[in-house]
Amino acid sequence: MVPLIGDERLDYLLDERLRIIQSPSVFSFSLDAVLLADFVSIPVKRGAIVDLCSGNGVIPLFLSLRTEGDIVGVEIQARLYDMANRSIQYNRLEQKIKMIHGDIKDAPGLLGYEKYDAVTCNPPYFKKTNSVEEINGNEHLAIARHEILCTLEDTISISSQLVKQGGKVAFVHRPGRLLDIITLMRANRLEPKRIRFVYPKEGKEANILLVEAIKDGKPDLKVLPPLFVYKDGNNYTEEMSRILYGK
Amino acid sequence: MVPLIGDERLDYLLDERLRIIQSPSVFSFSLDAVLLADFVSIPVKRGAIVDLCSGNGVIPLFLSLRTEGDIVGVEIQARLYDMANRSIQYNRLEQKIKMIHGDIKDAPGLLGYEKYDAVTCNPPYFKKTNSVEEINGNEHLAIARHEILCTLEDTISISSQLVKQGGKVAFVHRPGRLLDIITLMRANRLEPKRIRFVYPKEGKEANILLVEAIKDGKPDLKVLPPLFVYKDGNNYTEEMSRILYGK
Repeated sequence: MVPLIGDERLDYLLDERLRIIQSPSVFSFSLDAVLLADFVSIPVKRGAIVDLCSGNGVIPLFLSLRTEGDIVGVEIQARLYDMANRSIQYNRLEQKIKMIHGDIKDAPGLLGYEKYDAVTCNPPYFKKTNSVEEINGNEHLAIARHEILCTLEDTISISSQLVKQGGKVAFVHRPGRLLDIITLMRANRLEPKRIRFVYPKEGKEANILLVEAIKDGKPDLKVLPPLFVYKDGNNYTEEMSRILYGK
Repeated sequence: MVPLIGDERLDYLLDERLRIIQSPSVFSFSLDAVLLADFVSIPVKRGAIVDLCSGNGVIPLFLSLRTEGDIVGVEIQARLYDMANRSIQYNRLEQKIKMIHGDIKDAPGLLGYEKYDAVTCNPPYFKKTNSVEEINGNEHLAIARHEILCTLEDTISISSQLVKQGGKVAFVHRPGRLLDIITLMRANRLEPKRIRFVYPKEGKEANILLVEAIKDGKPDLKVLPPLFVYKDGNNYTEEMSRILYGK
């Protein structure tokens, strides 16, 4: 039996195929993480994948249904690392997913350089601003959302150090950071090859960016069909339902 | 009476509001140019706009319906320059559109530095390859399509020299060149602010990129709603019909 702590709850993922521990006051996964786990190209039968800034392990959990390879999640916050580990236990995925509690900057030293087939990252989105939320607010949420303990440059540089030549690095972020991400990826030998924009609904600006690069890849960018989240009111589009519920 | 030469024909634009001289063997405008003329932000009541690599003047002609300002088109090929001038005469737009016959590299010297509110460009898309088409094919089409007389870097650098601080520079290109365009724009003080991807239809990859930058603008990129060209078979979507026919 896996214990729940405080306001934690055990939520279903993918129509009951997985369960995940979440907490409104500490960390709940976002649509962005789910979209990234669906978007990234990963080996199906073998191989090794690293997920940086793993939070409560939502991306490793989703990826475990897409691959028979090994998955490593890296999370710096002890509380989130612990939630991820308990979710892994709950789903009996200890043989497939390992969580590392630590700073992503130490990950290449611990896990090895250029050994991974794919690296995913749903990094903190907001620049460090010393805002009220950061200083006085909830520390768990502030660290997950703001570039307090790592910057976009850190996450991209470390992804490049971990991934093999020819391996994939996939990020989710806000479209407003597209230029920064592309510039930083290219500066770190990661050539963006697939981009997908996610729109809340038709007629709205994109609010989520998915980008996948290949280490030392040749320039040849594809912009995939747009993904719309809602079709009307609060109903998901068919594609979004498939991603979230597997059907 | 404006004469037609060889296989030229006089085509309607925007549901008979304009006519344009085209020639299958020399130059016919593309959807890309029409989309750029619709996409770019221009002053309505006054101001001055330059269109680089103007071809048969399709962008200046379209823009003349959106602004009371002055429009200058620059075209290096004498034959296309001549076609553009005759179309301008035919539409009695000589007071509004001036064509310059010359190399865009001379444009800032001729037209002035940092004096324009907006610059548009539908540049040659393909890198110089010394391909059969370039060497043995139709010279008019080869120059319009390949980076023979000017490169992407030239067009972006010259656009930046022509546009005012705070003015707009809008390009149309293939999505595969997104990273190059963004990198070159930023290197030339042009901050990309609006991007729109055009998809032939739902479920397909984007095949046209529209991007608008502001000279010395602050980073804040918006990715506009996707534009689909066809809805089924050969029928344009409603938005595409509006852009092409004004209704």
